Formats: sequence, structure tokens, C-alpha cells
Amino acid sequence: MNTVRDKGEYHRQTSERMERHFTVPAWSARQKLALAGRILAAEGHDSGIAGQLSARAERPGTYYMLRFGLGLEEASPDNLLLVDDDLNVLEGEGMPNPSNRFHLWVYRAKPRVNSIMHTHPPHVSALSMIGVPLAVSHMDTSLLFDDCAWLPHWPGTPIGDEEGRLISEAIGDKRTILLAHHGQLAAAATIEEAAVLSVFIERAARLQLLALGAGTIQPIDPTLAREAHDYRLKERAIGATFYYYARRALRQYPDDAGFAVASPPRQAAE
Amino acid sequence: MNTVRDKGEYHRQTSERMERHFTVPAWSARQKLALAGRILAAEGHDSGIAGQLSARAERPGTYYMLRFGLGLEEASPDNLLLVDDDLNVLEGEGMPNPSNRFHLWVYRAKPRVNSIMHTHPPHVSALSMIGVPLAVSHMDTSLLFDDCAWLPHWPGTPIGDEEGRLISEAIGDKRTILLAHHGQLAAAATIEEAAVLSVFIERAARLQLLALGAGTIQPIDPTLAREAHDYRLKERAIGATFYYYARRALRQYPDDAGFAVASPPRQAAE
Amino acid sequence: MNTVRDKGEYHRQTSERMERHFTVPAWSARQKLALAGRILAAEGHDSGIAGQLSARAERPGTYYMLRFGLGLEEASPDNLLLVDDDLNVLEGEGMPNPSNRFHLWVYRAKPRVNSIMHTHPPHVSALSMIGVPLAVSHMDTSLLFDDCAWLPHWPGTPIGDEEGRLISEAIGDKRTILLAHHGQLAAAATIEEAAVLSVFIERAARLQLLALGAGTIQPIDPTLAREAHDYRLKERAIGATFYYYARRALRQYPDDAGFAVASPPRQAAE
Amino acid sequence: MNTVRDKGEYHRQTSERMERHFTVPAWSARQKLALAGRILAAEGHDSGIAGQLSARAERPGTYYMLRFGLGLEEASPDNLLLVDDDLNVLEGEGMPNPSNRFHLWVYRAKPRVNSIMHTHPPHVSALSMIGVPLAVSHMDTSLLFDDCAWLPHWPGTPIGDEEGRLISEAIGDKRTILLAHHGQLAAAATIEEAAVLSVFIERAARLQLLALGAGTIQPIDPTLAREAHDYRLKERAIGATFYYYARRALRQYPDDAGFAVASPPRQAAE
Repeated sequence: MNTVRDKGEYHRQTSERMERHFTVPAWSARQKLALAGRILAAEGHDSGIAGQLSARAERPGTYYMLRFGLGLEEASPDNLLLVDDDLNVLEGEGMPNPSNRFHLWVYRAKPRVNSIMHTHPPHVSALSMIGVPLAVSHMDTSLLFDDCAWLPHWPGTPIGDEEGRLISEAIGDKRTILLAHHGQLAAAATIEEAAVLSVFIERAARLQLLALGAGTIQPIDPTLAREAHDYRLKERAIGATFYYYARRALRQYPDDAGFAVASPPRQAAE
Repeated sequence: MNTVRDKGEYHRQTSERMERHFTVPAWSARQKLALAGRILAAEGHDSGIAGQLSARAERPGTYYMLRFGLGLEEASPDNLLLVDDDLNVLEGEGMPNPSNRFHLWVYRAKPRVNSIMHTHPPHVSALSMIGVPLAVSHMDTSLLFDDCAWLPHWPGTPIGDEEGRLISEAIGDKRTILLAHHGQLAAAATIEEAAVLSVFIERAARLQLLALGAGTIQPIDPTLAREAHDYRLKERAIGATFYYYARRALRQYPDDAGFAVASPPRQAAE
Repeated sequence: MNTVRDKGEYHRQTSERMERHFTVPAWSARQKLALAGRILAAEGHDSGIAGQLSARAERPGTYYMLRFGLGLEEASPDNLLLVDDDLNVLEGEGMPNPSNRFHLWVYRAKPRVNSIMHTHPPHVSALSMIGVPLAVSHMDTSLLFDDCAWLPHWPGTPIGDEEGRLISEAIGDKRTILLAHHGQLAAAATIEEAAVLSVFIERAARLQLLALGAGTIQPIDPTLAREAHDYRLKERAIGATFYYYARRALRQYPDDAGFAVASPPRQAAE
Repeated sequence: MNTVRDKGEYHRQTSERMERHFTVPAWSARQKLALAGRILAAEGHDSGIAGQLSARAERPGTYYMLRFGLGLEEASPDNLLLVDDDLNVLEGEGMPNPSNRFHLWVYRAKPRVNSIMHTHPPHVSALSMIGVPLAVSHMDTSLLFDDCAWLPHWPGTPIGDEEGRLISEAIGDKRTILLAHHGQLAAAATIEEAAVLSVFIERAARLQLLALGAGTIQPIDPTLAREAHDYRLKERAIGATFYYYARRALRQYPDDAGFAVASPPRQAAE
């Protein structure tokens, strides 16, 4: 059976199999956003009450956001806020993080973006202090290859409009950005993609710091990296990864909101 | 809606909203001090039974302190000691840490200080060995910007008066100090502020060590850093951050003392 | 009793005693593979849903593999797949990881190999980015001494045949290999050996990164290292180590599959 | 109350108060050794089934040892072995670790030693690879100041007599030793002291690696370090520290052996 086939054939086969086998629960946007909060909390993304997740809501110009003052792991479908395009609360109790103003700038400028996750996890934060962009030099972080912008200076606490304009411009057409002295931002087509990108930016930053402490990072072949980038960003692969992280987060934090994914995995996936 | 407003307007709006939404339980000083112990334990601040928390009690010249021999996470409203200005126990069983003598020197010299948290967490401890002050180069640690003094030599186990005088002088008007070969001290207006500053000193030290292992730390703009410093130290922001950390600590350690904050966050905050 | 005996005598005595005392449960191949998944998960080997474990099944040319989309800790005897020599599923629901194609190349070329564990744990991943092979300079990692190959470039996502041929050739006669920009592979005679080697490759990489960040790694004596290598790879020693890790993993993840090793250790081992 | 007293007076007061307040349960040697195992496990000292704890038993020339094959956290008063001066089992099921032979050499040569703890925790292990001794440059690790020897080469797996002679000579009059390419050894007057020294050697190694990755370690004043060394090694201070770590370990691992220290701390210490 040492037949050697063309790699394209395997790519087609993989896509077809993922389409058939990688199914996920039919979560609402509120549920997905709350799950994303718990996923990022489980991955150590918190920095006190800093860090914010949002998603476009059904009505244009409205957004779901976490309530400011809650931790990422405390996000729940029924404590999310619905806000308008000026951060006024339309539904829910409490206030959004005033720094979410820059989310609005990104949403307005990029119709492709449906969800933004912005956190200050420790390795991204440390990396953001030394004036270098994110290094993508590992297969698993290739979903960020040529897809992570870099804002090399810090405009201050981003509660104003000027910071919103600046960040929105700096991210350009990329899905993610490393913000100097600040954190990371993932602005993606879906909540699932934004969450998975956020997990892997922090992982990439950790790998980068570990590697830089021990040697010199070697580059990877750009053509292969782009192929891996596209492979890892397939909608079905992102969905399956998000689903796995959701199951894992719900083993750490109780399922107090009917996510219905806490059953043993061999049932859950069948 | 791409209106650009003055940032001052957003700051005013944020203050007003925090005033309305960031409410916290009406804890007693004993409860807050015990919660602070659990918060710092959850953040990895212990070094065996070293590290001590204290706060002014109602009667002038008296202080609440942890019982020496208990871990930070074992602090409870009913096992705290009430001591006088010479570390004699007025209420409670056991002894205070004799090193708390230097707390007394700080309290006497600084009427502004109502709570002191002194711990030896690992990253602060490692940083304290290499002869450099704390570097504040990230938005989240800006609450320490120009607010962390540095005692560059170690006077020995601080159970005497001379060490008390030295540390009290070295901290000067700042809220915190990095003590060479020893640890950190936060001396603040409230228990909540001292606890949050302690959490973020250790975080800042961790970021600094990670960054130094990988590159050169870039400075942040002092004007923006001071603005962020003041923003993060707003009483309401500190209160909400302390409250979040308290909820999180009480998910890790059982609520055996009626803190009444262990209920699900969406209830707790409403 | 300061008698000095020949070391060979102690080696013989040790072998005899291990034979008598180091007994393990009679697990099936499916059970062992599922336990290996949980062991590696508990050791932090996950990278999302990347990483795969496999073992030869009873019928030649068939293999047990984890279902793609499940995390390592979700592996269970009854959710494993049985696949043929072209990754077609013979038993079970779902699909194998298409990257398992390179497992097939290794199995075909190496009759000595009965189990392959391939993961992307963080320290191996970081090390794989800086262009140096695994350094074995500690007694505990000596089971990898002269037994870890090194593939210095990354051929892209290994779902094709060319990558399978390349990895199969690069590992040669060694039990393990470090794959640049990718991860680790252990190809061993038994499931237990593959699992223990995988645990210790990640540990070796962690030690290497920690050591390189602080100084220069000193080599160990090759003769003594080879003696330690053989001592640690004794079947009974590997079996006892796997059994301990299994008990530990089952204290972290529930025993939902009748592994019957979750009882208190003093019973379990008697 | 800014009276300045002589520091000696405070030392006397502290000793007197510790004598009165720092009481501990009346554990048996078997109980203490099992607690030490759980303490070191909770501190991350395991390296598979490597690492061993022992203590002199009541009858001269006999010793308690962990059963080889169990993890540190699995040690229990009723699964410890009683062995003679040639590692033959007198009581209990199973075998001791053959590497414990070097414990025997230390016990024979040093009547002052009543307990030996030998582990390969990760930071000690990494440090042991780079050819430098343990740096003691922090108040909390001063209990190791001038009290940690250094064996700069590795004699191979220490199951023979030659390695026992070598290690026994290298430790000399000190309480601890760093063994190149291997681990740490604490040989102390009591089980409690050996356990606490082991915890702090790993902590010291971690601080050293963190510090070396970021800068140059500054020395501490030897006179003050010796004073701190003696202060921290007071029998009552060691006892209280051991007791705290035991309570903490028993919150992580169940109290399946009647240690009777798992009650809430405010009761436990009264």
C-alpha cells in the first residue's frame, strides 16, 4: 500500500470527511459568546476585569457584549448586554467596558467582521512590551501566518475615538493584531473563529517567548505556511476545535446555562 | 456614527456609569482582609507561611493581622488577630508574624495608609534578586506607574525596628515598593486597593521576567501611563476588580465564613 | 555493612525484584490507548485537536486511532476507531486525523513499531522552532539518550504520502524524533513505552528550555547515559511508570470506562 | 511608640511566642513520611516514579521507605516499607527503590541525619544540567545559605555502593546537596526539616532560573543570610511550616489515612 497519491487528493478527501463528521450543536450567538468567554478564561486570558468579547447581534448596528465587571468565565447567555453603536445598553443590566468603543470602529470599517475578541493574556502581554511582532514559526500557529498585524505603539487607554480609528486602521485586512503594551485582538467572520484565533495567539506568544529565551527562531517556508493557514482555518476545523474547547471549559466551569455540551464526549460527538 | 468626541467626555461618562453599576457587598474589614488572603493565595503569593496582610482596626493604634502559622488562604474573619501598636494580641488566639513590626512603622508614618499587604510571590522574588526596579510597561500594570519604590538592599529578617524605619522611609509617598531579596509591599488607602496592587505587582514582575528573557523592554509614554494609572485606580474600578477576584477565590476555596459572594455571578452582580 | 559489591549484582537483583513486584492490570489495547490519551492530556500535550495516538490492532494492516475532533483526554475504549492501511474506517463513528497517514508509513517500514504517539506539547513545540535537536543531559531523560532523531525542516501539514516517507526515513532506528516546527513522535514496541517516551520528551524539552535560558548545558557521560537508558527502558519499569501515570490521570479525569485502576493506590498495587 | 529596641530582644520574644503558639499534631514517623510525600507531590516534585523519601525507624539499622512504583502522593502510613541496612524488606509489600542504597550510605556516615528526601523536581533538574551550584539570594531560601553542597558530576544511576560513597562524602556537613544531572537531596535531623528544605530547594532553583533568564543575581550579605538561615530553621518554625503544607496537601489529596489535619484551619490550629 505504499502508493503515493497527489496531496491535493488528500485535501479534497479531508474536506469531504470534515463536512460529514465535524458537526456541532446549534448554539445561539449568545451561547457561543458565553462559551468563548469560558474558553478564554480556561486558557488564562484574564487580566482582572480587562479583556472584552463582542459579536454583531441580529439587528444591524447592535452588538452583544460582556457586562463590564464580570470575569470572562462568568459570561452567560443571560447576562450579556445588547448595546447600540454608541455603547448605550438596549438590553441587560450594567455597563459595557468603555474600551469597547474601539470594537465599534472595527465593526463599522469591516463588514467582514462579525465578532471581536480582545484580551490581555500574559504571554501576549509580555511579548507586547519588547517591540517585536508575533513570530509564526510552528504548524499549529500557522493559522496566524501573515494574518497578525502589529501596532507598535500604545495610544493609551482606548476609551476614546482616536484609539478606535488607530486600531481599526492598523489591523487592515488581517484577522488579528498584536497591540504594543496592551494585548491582542481577533476580528473574525464568526465567534468560533475569533475564539480559536485568540487561543492560538496566546499560544504563539508563549512559544515565541520560550523559544527566544533559548535560541533563535527559524523561519518556516511561506508557501507551506499559507497552505497550513488555510487548512487550519477551514470552517469545519474551526468549528470542531471550538467545540472541543467548549467541552473542556465546561468540565472546568459548571454548565449553568444549558449549553448541553457537558455530556461525556463519546455521546456528545455522536 | 463615526462622530469623534473629546476623550474627556468619555472619561466623565465612564466615571458616572461606574458609580451607578459597580456596586459591591458591604463587607466588614475582617471579611475584606480574609478575602484578600484568599485572593493572593489563589494568585500564588504564598511562600510557606511568609507574607502578611494587615489593616487598621476601628480603634486608633490597633490593627487586624493574620495569625502567624496560617496560610494566606486560611485567613477567615474569625481567626484574624487584633493587635496593638507593639504587636501584643488584644483579641484572638496565637501570635502575629514578628516581621509585621515594619507594618507598624509604615502605619505610624503614613496616615494615608489603612492597609498593608506584604508577600513574597515567585516572580517578584526572582526579580528582587537581580538588582533592578519594577518595570511598568503595560497598560494593565500602569496602576503601578511611578508608584512602586525600590529598596535596593536587604536589611535582613525584618523583625527589628531598624528595618521598619528603613522600609517606611524607602516607600515614601508611593503606594508600593519592591524589596530587594525579599518581596513586595503595598500600602494603600483601602484593603481593596492594597490587594489589587499586590496582584498586579506580581503580574508586572512576571511580565518583566518573561520580556527580559526574550528581548528589551520598551518604555511607555509617561503622560499616557499616568492617565491609565489614575483610570485604573478609580475607587469603583478597584472595588469591581477586588469583587471579581473575591468571587473567583471563593470558587477555589470554600466560602466557610458567610462572605455571601459565591452565588452565580449573574445574580451576584444584580 | 559498608560492604562494596559489584554494581552488576545490584542490576541483577533489581531486575529480579521488578519482575516479582511490578505487576500491572491486564488492560486491552483499546484501554491502554485511551489511558495514554488521558496521561498525555494530563501532562499538557494537547494543542487543540492536534496530536494523535495509534496502535496496531490484532489483524495485520489494521490500527486503532483516536477519533479526529476529540481531545486526548476524551479518548475512551469505545470511541476509538479501527482503520485500515489507507485510513478507511472499519469500526467506529467519525474520521481519523488525515495527518495519521504518516503513522502508516512508519508502521509499514518498521515491524518493531506497535504504537505511535504524536503530539505537539508546548515545550517540544517551542524547542522545535529554534533549530536544535533535543538535548539529553539528565538522568530522568536518559531513556531518550541517542534515541531521539531530528528532522530539521518542516515539510508542511503531513496529510500526504511524501511527508510520511520523509518522517519514516528520518526516525530511522530510533524510538523517537523531534520534528522541526511541529512536535514529537514516539514509535515504540508497546503502547506503554510510546506513552512514557512521549511524557519524557516533553519533560526533556522543558528542562532544555529552562537550562538554555539560564546557562550552558553540560553533557553527560555517554557510557553512563546508555546504562541509564537501558535501565529506564526495562519493560517492567516502563510498565510501572505507565501504571502510575494512569492512576494519576484517572484521579484527574473520571474513570468512565471501567479501567479499574482508580482505587486507592495501596490497594491497587497489592 | 517609635521606641527602638535591640533586635536580640525581638528574637528572644519571637522564640518564646513560637514555643507557646506553634504546636503541631502528634504524628507518627509513618504519618509524617506519608505527609511529606504528599507535600512534595503537591509542589510538583515528581518525575514519574523517581524520587524517594526515607526516615530512620525505631530499631537501629532499619528505615521507613516508600514502596517503589508508587507516586509521592500515594504514600500512606500503611503502604510504607520497613527495610534493613541492605534494602531487604522487613515489613510491607513490594520493593524499595534500588537507588535508595545511597540513602544507607548517608545514614551510616551521619548520625545527625534521621530523614532523607531525594527528588528530581523540574527546576532543580534543569539547574542541575548547567554546571552551577544553587544560588541563595533571597530571604525565603536563606535556610539553604551555606547549607547546600554541590556534586558537579553525575556518577550514573545510583544503585551501586560507589555512588553511595560519593554522594555521602559530597554532602559533608551540609543539610542539602544539588546533584548534577540528577536532582536534590535533603538529609536532616527530622522528617519535617527534610521536607521543608526540599520544598525550598526547588523554590530556590526556580527563582535562580527565572533570575538568570532576566539578569545577574546579586549576592546577599553573608552575616544577615546566616541570621535568617538560623531563624528559619528554628524547630518551631519548621514545624509550623510543615503543618501548613500538610493541611494544604490534604486539601488537594484526600485524607485517606486519618491524618486528622484536614479540618478547617481555624479549628486545626486552636
